[in-house]
Amino acid sequence: MDSMMMDMMKSMPADKMRGMDMTAMQECIEACSMASMAATMCADSDTGMDMARCSSMCTSMVDVATATMRMMMRPMGMDQASMRAMLMACVEMGKACSAECMMHADMDEQCRMCAKACDAMVAACEKLLASSAMA
Amino acid sequence: MDSMMMDMMKSMPADKMRGMDMTAMQECIEACSMASMAATMCADSDTGMDMARCSSMCTSMVDVATATMRMMMRPMGMDQASMRAMLMACVEMGKACSAECMMHADMDEQCRMCAKACDAMVAACEKLLASSAMA
Amino acid sequence: MDSMMMDMMKSMPADKMRGMDMTAMQECIEACSMASMAATMCADSDTGMDMARCSSMCTSMVDVATATMRMMMRPMGMDQASMRAMLMACVEMGKACSAECMMHADMDEQCRMCAKACDAMVAACEKLLASSAMA
Amino acid sequence: MDSMMMDMMKSMPADKMRGMDMTAMQECIEACSMASMAATMCADSDTGMDMARCSSMCTSMVDVATATMRMMMRPMGMDQASMRAMLMACVEMGKACSAECMMHADMDEQCRMCAKACDAMVAACEKLLASSAMA
Repeated sequence: MDSMMMDMMKSMPADKMRGMDMTAMQECIEACSMASMAATMCADSDTGMDMARCSSMCTSMVDVATATMRMMMRPMGMDQASMRAMLMACVEMGKACSAECMMHADMDEQCRMCAKACDAMVAACEKLLASSAMA
Repeated sequence: MDSMMMDMMKSMPADKMRGMDMTAMQECIEACSMASMAATMCADSDTGMDMARCSSMCTSMVDVATATMRMMMRPMGMDQASMRAMLMACVEMGKACSAECMMHADMDEQCRMCAKACDAMVAACEKLLASSAMA
Repeated sequence: MDSMMMDMMKSMPADKMRGMDMTAMQECIEACSMASMAATMCADSDTGMDMARCSSMCTSMVDVATATMRMMMRPMGMDQASMRAMLMACVEMGKACSAECMMHADMDEQCRMCAKACDAMVAACEKLLASSAMA
Repeated sequence: MDSMMMDMMKSMPADKMRGMDMTAMQECIEACSMASMAATMCADSDTGMDMARCSSMCTSMVDVATATMRMMMRPMGMDQASMRAMLMACVEMGKACSAECMMHADMDEQCRMCAKACDAMVAACEKLLASSAMA
């Protein structure tokens, strides 16, 4: 992540974050951003009858990853139950999207990279969910 | 909902929807659309130090309601586990946003209407979650 | 548009709207919402090699129509030059998306309805652009 | 930008990009991503009566920057007139948002960084608009 973004996150009001693990959250924000970009490109590259499910899932992946990322960037309205449920939705969508993309990973470079970005995002979300503030 | 939208939803491939209750889904799509619009306007109208939490929650409500709405409009990539988790995230965010907006409903007409739209969306999501295809 | 949304728009601070034609703006908001939904469903239904351009354009149409719609719902930050440029971008994307969808309108009901929704949105944006406050 | 994203962009179908300057486009995508994140955090941090216009503009900046970024990531539906109009809308919104944020930059670190990110995005959009393929 860009150093300017790091500075912005450091200037977030810590008291609003209710003990959230800021390092885990920064990694999760970056992973969501990457997955959102990868899925945008993967959805676009999916051509042919057999790729309709992949394209559709990737397009929803973009929406879910973007919403999850932005929620983490809004300390003023942080609500633990909503954040937790959204991270869980991001995990489910990430797993489903990765599984679909992996089916085409041998033939399609965009699918291979999208699956990788989804896997990294799922891991980052699960790490954040496992942290004490989210338990 | 506009009659054209009704026609579009009727032309969705039913076999991809895996037995989902299409009437409950249409109501949920419309409720998410309304909540997204109401929260967009409520977030914008929130001025003053005491409204920062309300504005922040409403802005996240827009993202979550929009992502949930669009997922329902994509039969090709419908995945039950992801859809279910997203509806649950929408319920949590909707409850939190409504509770916050209700605290200002006496003084602020936008907050009163946003709370009402969130409540209707939560009810529509819960109805869809309770339907047989999502159980 | 739902009566509640009408009420919300009526409670917008008129002094912030800098003389904008509120009736034309309400019609434009609704037209953008419809086009965004129609394009979401059209992009999802596009399967097969020949539909990749259509699906890609519809997906961008969703983003552009949604951003345009939301800008109109934010009186507090209304900036004429930005609003004008965004409406013009929405017109260009709407024309391009409609032209592409019309090429498949005979075979594909979703394309036919998406083209119709885009045409209505383009007309609503052009009407708003032609109003005195935007000139 | 992450090296994986670089790889994904390199695997974009160059023939669809109609001679677009891929280096300028990559820089523009990254600048839009940064401005979108900075504006998300700036909008959230804006509290107090005098910051309502700043928060509103930043929230629209997020929508415009995100839509512009994603359009560049979709080679399949690339349309020069739409892309050009969207880049111009992004420039207008970026200039307006930066000007507003600069008014609070002395007191507010988030505003200072958001203005900087908007300026960088405006420069990147203008560079891309000036390239031969967009002329």
